[in-house]
Amino acid sequence: MKLIDNIADMKSYSDRIRAEGNKISFVPTMGALHTGHLKLIKNANNISDICVVSIFINPAQFGPTEDFNKYPRDLDKDKGLLKEIGVDAIFFPKLEDMYGDHFQTYVEVEELQKPLCGKLRPGHFKGVATIVLKLFNIVKPHYAVFGEKDYQQLQVIKKMVCDLNLDVDIISHPIVREQSGLAMSSRNDYLDSGQREKACSISQALFNIKQQFDTGITDRNNLLDSAYSILNKANIDEIEYLEIVDGKNLIEKKLAGPGDLVAIAARLDGTRLIDNIRL
Amino acid sequence: MKLIDNIADMKSYSDRIRAEGNKISFVPTMGALHTGHLKLIKNANNISDICVVSIFINPAQFGPTEDFNKYPRDLDKDKGLLKEIGVDAIFFPKLEDMYGDHFQTYVEVEELQKPLCGKLRPGHFKGVATIVLKLFNIVKPHYAVFGEKDYQQLQVIKKMVCDLNLDVDIISHPIVREQSGLAMSSRNDYLDSGQREKACSISQALFNIKQQFDTGITDRNNLLDSAYSILNKANIDEIEYLEIVDGKNLIEKKLAGPGDLVAIAARLDGTRLIDNIRL
Repeated sequence: MKLIDNIADMKSYSDRIRAEGNKISFVPTMGALHTGHLKLIKNANNISDICVVSIFINPAQFGPTEDFNKYPRDLDKDKGLLKEIGVDAIFFPKLEDMYGDHFQTYVEVEELQKPLCGKLRPGHFKGVATIVLKLFNIVKPHYAVFGEKDYQQLQVIKKMVCDLNLDVDIISHPIVREQSGLAMSSRNDYLDSGQREKACSISQALFNIKQQFDTGITDRNNLLDSAYSILNKANIDEIEYLEIVDGKNLIEKKLAGPGDLVAIAARLDGTRLIDNIRL
Repeated sequence: MKLIDNIADMKSYSDRIRAEGNKISFVPTMGALHTGHLKLIKNANNISDICVVSIFINPAQFGPTEDFNKYPRDLDKDKGLLKEIGVDAIFFPKLEDMYGDHFQTYVEVEELQKPLCGKLRPGHFKGVATIVLKLFNIVKPHYAVFGEKDYQQLQVIKKMVCDLNLDVDIISHPIVREQSGLAMSSRNDYLDSGQREKACSISQALFNIKQQFDTGITDRNNLLDSAYSILNKANIDEIEYLEIVDGKNLIEKKLAGPGDLVAIAARLDGTRLIDNIRL
């Protein structure tokens, strides 16, 4: 397994792989790898000759009051996990190399970045789109795999790839859940066992909406009402949003239809959790 | 000479050229080619195995009240001129292919886009950076050549390439002037012979500043004063800016130094002309 910590080496590694006619798959991560990441990375590893994983905690996607400084970091553990899977290369660039002197070029996917998380995290998707574009230009993958838990991120990146004429196939990977239903996330590390139990009600609320929809209920308010009572019963009172939106353009729907997305963001004693389900 | 009018064909042409180990140089243009373009394109043709010129009038870089609709168009004439030079391919994509359904992804070079033309043409450099990035992703050049007449554009693109980790060498080409000193521009087509004569005072004002600087004058106001009188004498009263700025970050200088840029934009009966000179 190659350990690559600088941009020029990563570019020449990828140039060589491509010149040999091999296909590169790529999974960008912020480290703190959990089973969700690992399943997704195994998938990426299976579909290509060479699999590259990046580990970079991207300050541009954190707001000034967010958890950039306390975001979990354990590079050695991550390296061990990736070696076990049989990843070909890890790219872990330095902050000052990715955002050098007078860095000032940003990409925005102007409509898709606005709703849902975009409302509460201004600048977040600008930071995401910019770092992903930079990483694509450095790692030069044929395929890149993103998890569906960050559904809005996935749509933002797909649209960026299309609009900017990039030659990368974006592959999405289903949400990986714990037995309890809780969507796996590096931020689950912040939760103690009591909070973890409470957090399950987030996925339960989504499953409840899907169940109701499958019985024929389509009115947004009807669908959301009982979900809210599940969340209230679990004392999750800081719900940033719980919304039914079009699965492609993320515009809010009053009447739900097949393919629509139910998306939620909630805070649990300061820890921000997101989840979603397709109808 | 290959005539390529769609994105997929352009990409596969460039992929093939690159796979054969050949180097591609690229000159993006909006057509209406003049001697300035042609010198620059000859230069591009000389430094690479394959030279691609694009012709695309990019609506995203025109303001709502600007001359997008009346911008000079003569594709057949342009094709003839490029064939004479021996260019390998012309790429002239359709508007609806470059800006497809719900296009919404834009790139901004946030600081360099602000001063000079950026003040008077809000959104202009956002449109320029976005189309150039798209064209780079489609044409996949090793080198791209830009004229120094659009000096701010050149700096914006250099910075974008650096910040986004693109593998393109940006090569600049000196301003090409008519015998009279007037910088060549497609917009000179809008001028009648009387206006053309008046327009010469723009370059004369710049040459005057350079002359004074070479005699040791460095104070901005002193340098600009006699330039303004040249412009006033020629009845060029609509001067959008005349400024001395740092040649790299384009920040205004009170005391000029070697390498600084003198830049001007003026309107002549509605026709907007720009020019610049390095000190």
